[in-house]
Amino acid sequence: MEYRIGMDLGGTNIAAGLVAGGELLVRRSVPTRAAEGEHAVIARMVSLVRELSAECGAGPGGVASLGVGTPGAVEPDSGRVLFCNNLGWRDVALRERLGEATGLPVAVGNDADCAALGEALFGGERRSDMALLTIGTGVGLGVVRDGTLVTGMRGAAGEFGHTTLIAGGELCSCGRRGCLERYAAFPALIRAAQRAADGGDIPLARLRDEGCLNGREIFALARGGSERAAALVSSFIGHIGDGVVNLVNLLDPGCVVIGGGIAPEGEYVLAPIREKLSREAYLGQRLPPVVMAALGGDAGILGAAALTPRQ
Amino acid sequence: MEYRIGMDLGGTNIAAGLVAGGELLVRRSVPTRAAEGEHAVIARMVSLVRELSAECGAGPGGVASLGVGTPGAVEPDSGRVLFCNNLGWRDVALRERLGEATGLPVAVGNDADCAALGEALFGGERRSDMALLTIGTGVGLGVVRDGTLVTGMRGAAGEFGHTTLIAGGELCSCGRRGCLERYAAFPALIRAAQRAADGGDIPLARLRDEGCLNGREIFALARGGSERAAALVSSFIGHIGDGVVNLVNLLDPGCVVIGGGIAPEGEYVLAPIREKLSREAYLGQRLPPVVMAALGGDAGILGAAALTPRQ
Repeated sequence: MEYRIGMDLGGTNIAAGLVAGGELLVRRSVPTRAAEGEHAVIARMVSLVRELSAECGAGPGGVASLGVGTPGAVEPDSGRVLFCNNLGWRDVALRERLGEATGLPVAVGNDADCAALGEALFGGERRSDMALLTIGTGVGLGVVRDGTLVTGMRGAAGEFGHTTLIAGGELCSCGRRGCLERYAAFPALIRAAQRAADGGDIPLARLRDEGCLNGREIFALARGGSERAAALVSSFIGHIGDGVVNLVNLLDPGCVVIGGGIAPEGEYVLAPIREKLSREAYLGQRLPPVVMAALGGDAGILGAAALTPRQ
Repeated sequence: MEYRIGMDLGGTNIAAGLVAGGELLVRRSVPTRAAEGEHAVIARMVSLVRELSAECGAGPGGVASLGVGTPGAVEPDSGRVLFCNNLGWRDVALRERLGEATGLPVAVGNDADCAALGEALFGGERRSDMALLTIGTGVGLGVVRDGTLVTGMRGAAGEFGHTTLIAGGELCSCGRRGCLERYAAFPALIRAAQRAADGGDIPLARLRDEGCLNGREIFALARGGSERAAALVSSFIGHIGDGVVNLVNLLDPGCVVIGGGIAPEGEYVLAPIREKLSREAYLGQRLPPVVMAALGGDAGILGAAALTPRQ
């Protein structure tokens, strides 16, 4: 049995798993705490590798490789993270540093690309021509055509989160204004909920006071009948839907798959997106199916584990 | 010598040429007058084919094939135009109707794809990995990777003009709001100039009264020192620049090529776009060159002529 470690480095959590034969055997997750800087984050990644290696009972030598999906733009050959606004990283030699610290062969890819690869390999049918949109701390895009990942002309394509939703709009941490990511990733929902809580909305203020003002809790409140939370979530899903219409108009994919932290919200998110797509897509007569990632939030771990380290 | 006819069906003009060995021998252009309906437009296309066939001195039999680039979404196998907002066409069997009327083998492709193909084949160096943005009556996108045209998963990709610039913004003729095309194609500039003319701007009112309120004349006025025209053109170029940043963030192309009706404006357009790109691109450290189509407005004709008719 060949064990591999797959890791999904997110803006909020680092999720990692021990994988064998495309199955996730053990899963671990720790907060990213990106504000503590790249050294601290990489140290946490290394600790996760040690924990998971210990799980397979053979120490690091029992693991064949480590694959990491990271947000932002990655140079595939070197495994350098060129820029990542959500982590605040610029030119970080991630592959080299993880390789030195763990002794493992390491591969680094874009997180949404990894999720798309995971879905394409292990997500079941109709995944050979798809656009996978990840919604979490950021917005990512992975595209699979004819069963093969499209990684862009120079390895850094797919920064779909940094295309305009509202030109000249809110300032994004990438430096540009009005990026889709500024409206269609969880921090946008959390900021809006924070404003509503500060403005006196009782259920949202309670969440805030309990320190639970996160995407999952705001969605739970919306599903539970809180009007204000439902309105915020509806607007948030509307922005994701704008992104889906853009994707469909631009790429005409065989299928749109939505993954990342939003995956557990299922039909509650999908139904209004499908409705928007049917109203607004350029080719209304042939809409691709819009589905959640079959592997949910684990697509990125499984895809990262499947990356082949370059020697 | 094998003669082919290439035709670039635009929202404003139908341009066509007799092509041999990648050279444009004769060029003809007539107004499209899309408002007269598809029968009238197709009749004008057929007349152009007859004129150009006569030029090569052998009648229709002397021409090997007809290739047509059309705006909107095309189904490549059938040569049907599924939808084109600029012409107001929906499900028009263009290949079949042109084939019946001319007796020629006919190929139909998207206009921006044709322009990209023309540039890739005949546009000189550095065209094997590029994104070609056409700016004219509409906004089109053709993508070439490794020397091959990327025509999308189901043949209708690249409706980049119908991705959002300003979500919820101005109503586009595709039915959606805030599309890039609504802001970054010539009709947007002409509408703004019309408003300025109606508001009393003397140079623009003169253009209007002379019936010359078109893109080229408004650009000429801006270059000539008219402040209002220069401000309108600057804002227009800014929107094109927004589109270029989106393209670069999304596709990371080796080169951005700008074609279509705006091609003759050269550096006047390119310089502010490059400046915006250097300020706003996600990966500021490696910006692709931004250049005008080497073949100018003829790229679409040459690329259409190079299409291979399906039997």
